[in-house]
Amino acid sequence: MTPQEAYKELTQRTKKIATLSSCSSVLAWEERTYMPRGGAEHRAAQESLIAGLVHEWLVDPRIGELLATLEASPIVKDPDSIEAANVRETRRLYDRETKLPKELVEEFTQTTSLAQGEWADARKKSDFKHFLPWLEKVVKLTQRVAECYGYKDEIYDALLDGYEPGMKTAEVVRVFSALRPELVELNKKIAHSKKKPDSSIVHRAYDKDLQRVFGESVAAAMGFDFNQGRLDVTTHPFCSGFGPGDTRITTRYNPNRLNDALFGIMHEAGHALYEMGIDKEHNFGTPVGEASSLSLHESQSRMWENQVGRSREFWVYFFPQAQRIFRDALGDVTLDAFYGAINYSEPSYIRVEADEATYNLHIMLRFELERAIIKGDLKPADIPGEWNRRFKEYVGIEVDKDSNGCLQDVHWSAGLFGYFPTYCLGTMYSAQFFAKAKKDMPDLAKQIEQGNLSGLLGWLRKNIHQFGSRYRAADLGKRVTGEVLSHKPLMDYMNKKYGEIYGF
Amino acid sequence: MTPQEAYKELTQRTKKIATLSSCSSVLAWEERTYMPRGGAEHRAAQESLIAGLVHEWLVDPRIGELLATLEASPIVKDPDSIEAANVRETRRLYDRETKLPKELVEEFTQTTSLAQGEWADARKKSDFKHFLPWLEKVVKLTQRVAECYGYKDEIYDALLDGYEPGMKTAEVVRVFSALRPELVELNKKIAHSKKKPDSSIVHRAYDKDLQRVFGESVAAAMGFDFNQGRLDVTTHPFCSGFGPGDTRITTRYNPNRLNDALFGIMHEAGHALYEMGIDKEHNFGTPVGEASSLSLHESQSRMWENQVGRSREFWVYFFPQAQRIFRDALGDVTLDAFYGAINYSEPSYIRVEADEATYNLHIMLRFELERAIIKGDLKPADIPGEWNRRFKEYVGIEVDKDSNGCLQDVHWSAGLFGYFPTYCLGTMYSAQFFAKAKKDMPDLAKQIEQGNLSGLLGWLRKNIHQFGSRYRAADLGKRVTGEVLSHKPLMDYMNKKYGEIYGF
Repeated sequence: MTPQEAYKELTQRTKKIATLSSCSSVLAWEERTYMPRGGAEHRAAQESLIAGLVHEWLVDPRIGELLATLEASPIVKDPDSIEAANVRETRRLYDRETKLPKELVEEFTQTTSLAQGEWADARKKSDFKHFLPWLEKVVKLTQRVAECYGYKDEIYDALLDGYEPGMKTAEVVRVFSALRPELVELNKKIAHSKKKPDSSIVHRAYDKDLQRVFGESVAAAMGFDFNQGRLDVTTHPFCSGFGPGDTRITTRYNPNRLNDALFGIMHEAGHALYEMGIDKEHNFGTPVGEASSLSLHESQSRMWENQVGRSREFWVYFFPQAQRIFRDALGDVTLDAFYGAINYSEPSYIRVEADEATYNLHIMLRFELERAIIKGDLKPADIPGEWNRRFKEYVGIEVDKDSNGCLQDVHWSAGLFGYFPTYCLGTMYSAQFFAKAKKDMPDLAKQIEQGNLSGLLGWLRKNIHQFGSRYRAADLGKRVTGEVLSHKPLMDYMNKKYGEIYGF
Repeated sequence: MTPQEAYKELTQRTKKIATLSSCSSVLAWEERTYMPRGGAEHRAAQESLIAGLVHEWLVDPRIGELLATLEASPIVKDPDSIEAANVRETRRLYDRETKLPKELVEEFTQTTSLAQGEWADARKKSDFKHFLPWLEKVVKLTQRVAECYGYKDEIYDALLDGYEPGMKTAEVVRVFSALRPELVELNKKIAHSKKKPDSSIVHRAYDKDLQRVFGESVAAAMGFDFNQGRLDVTTHPFCSGFGPGDTRITTRYNPNRLNDALFGIMHEAGHALYEMGIDKEHNFGTPVGEASSLSLHESQSRMWENQVGRSREFWVYFFPQAQRIFRDALGDVTLDAFYGAINYSEPSYIRVEADEATYNLHIMLRFELERAIIKGDLKPADIPGEWNRRFKEYVGIEVDKDSNGCLQDVHWSAGLFGYFPTYCLGTMYSAQFFAKAKKDMPDLAKQIEQGNLSGLLGWLRKNIHQFGSRYRAADLGKRVTGEVLSHKPLMDYMNKKYGEIYGF
């Protein structure tokens, strides 16, 4: 068998796996958008059957043989080639999928499934003690899982790698340690500022249908192609790429909160533009036909949501449009008042409701705690105390009850350790990429003021989207910006923006 | 291996196949309801992958071994038992699926796929000659397929059996020969009648959203459970049972034709009630957990659409409700005028737009022609002449062009020979079942007048739905009504109804 033949067989296999797996994406999307509740049990059976098949096909020893052949061949000589990237990332997936004993996977699936139910009950009653024994079980199982994956430096690396290939805990610590004090400082300035925007403007009455119309027009202006995607309604918004030519986003409309759906749609459309910009026609079903990492995905959603959507330039063009659609709510509002309102910031308990200035403090707190839990430095029983202490220190307010604190997120009950930091890494990348885009296109701000968002999209496609997983996030970041990941572009941007709005 | 073990393994296998196959149902439903057009190519790849797997699992020789073991065991001793029925119908499927050589399946799939495109072009131009070479290819391939399946009496049996297990061509000929002259006679009376209802009433302006609201209320009154199903919009209406707890129906709304969506929804909801009434919780994935045949399915849709939905009793209760919803269109209309309008009948070219009195003439003509084509008694080239001659004789009008004649239906280009007669068989069953239900429940008409449709649904569940494929259609018909399939109940019902409306 020549390396070319091995490569062909490998990609045929991964393509078949990806096609089957994409059927599950459709099932899961439909479950959350339209499925009547009576269909839940059978839908679970459908998804579980496909998940089982996908796993079975992925751990086929033949894939191991093909990888071994290819790794010893000249095909991987240029590490930046598409072929080398596909071999590298398929190896990573294959190893992760084959390293866990079947019994452990089953125990993990069962325990986290039950733990999520117990967590929901505990959150309702704000009763951490009720959740504690389940959390302890999940932590122990997650530690066993991480041991199976293996690691060099520290155990948390093994989990982080599942969401952010190649990323190390030490690197996260490096950038978070630099970011946190500066962000805490910024939030103190905001809190102590005498000048405050009037946030009530965005809490007026906004008709849901009109929110949809405006949101769709913004998504279309961003470049979201409605011939190759849809916007639907779900309780928890998400983006799902089904495959070439079909990427779905969802949102939820609150008739008294303009920000939720508006920036939610821009966020999910940002994810979708990444999916739409990958060359799936040629590469679907291989790693190069997929996004590189969660942080890179988040860099795209956060860039459109914040760097673009919460910029003054953007609203120079779009505010008059918004005024035409929301005549009653915005007719008497000035551009600057609106710009202030959408950027209003104050400390709050719940991560998913946090504003741009406080959000990453929520994330860093979670990262610090979950890293300590997995290492065994922090006992699950001690989480509430440690959570509340740090929350006061970083965000500046006392947690009143655990449902507003350590019980608010589903992640730990589901065994999703290592996921949280990607949100903050992505935000940092978004600022770093956007700063570079501005440098490359000195008139970018002017383009955006004119409602022309295609320059930015073109830059993103050329520099980021088209590559899929060809480069890992850190490597791509360096290729694009010439620098390693840094908190500086994010803090420069935030200090400038909030300084102007809050007058410091 | 004990027969019990073999039975358990067989049903586990068929359940797995059915679960995977039901994923395809979701994909196909989503394709027709919500999918953006850019997703078409990838969706085809998803569906083709699943179809291939389903076929592969179904022709596994292990299924043949298990069937052989079971057929020689006491498990099938009682032919009316669930076990015997599951073995019988799985054998039928297994044989049909294994009898076709792979090359033939591929050639058939490719040719019919192309032929459907050519047919669409030919219909647009009303150019039969353009379609002829493709039709000839499809007919030859279909004959080869039928030869592979095998038959005792005549070749058409082999095709009919695909849609109507156990049904023979001779039996279709028996009932159609009795029905046709009487139906032609009835239509002549209608055509020559001096008394005509005013059909313009149902062609007034009916708001699409209100049509949906009213249609959903009727479906709910029929017993369609919106916790276990949905109603959506598609170009071509259909019903699809995804599995336990999830059955979807679709319709299309025409703002100037009340009948289309209204009776369309009742028709599809009738199909859905059958799906919902099968004991899928216990039997899903085995033949007994599925509908018995296309004609039985059509008996349910036609019963709700015509026997119930086009009855005067039904509108005694529902017409005042319709008047409240469609105030402008129906405010000045009497119950009798409305009842006449929804039952207005006149000859027309297009089957899917035909009314209750003429519809089955369209079907019988198609059956006669396709039987002759498959037997080789009629050359494809001679179809237009033969079609137009019989159409004039049965329906009473001259076909003006082939797009209004033999080019109107997709079926033959798709190789669907043997499908058409089930529409008419189902209509006959619907009348025969409904007559028996009336006999069993002498106050059924009164129940319906009071808007109470649960008595009928209960009767259908008890006598028909619950059995799934436990009995074949003809056997179930005899069990329920004590008689073989007959045209008489249908003609009695139609002569009485149209006699009253048209005054003869």
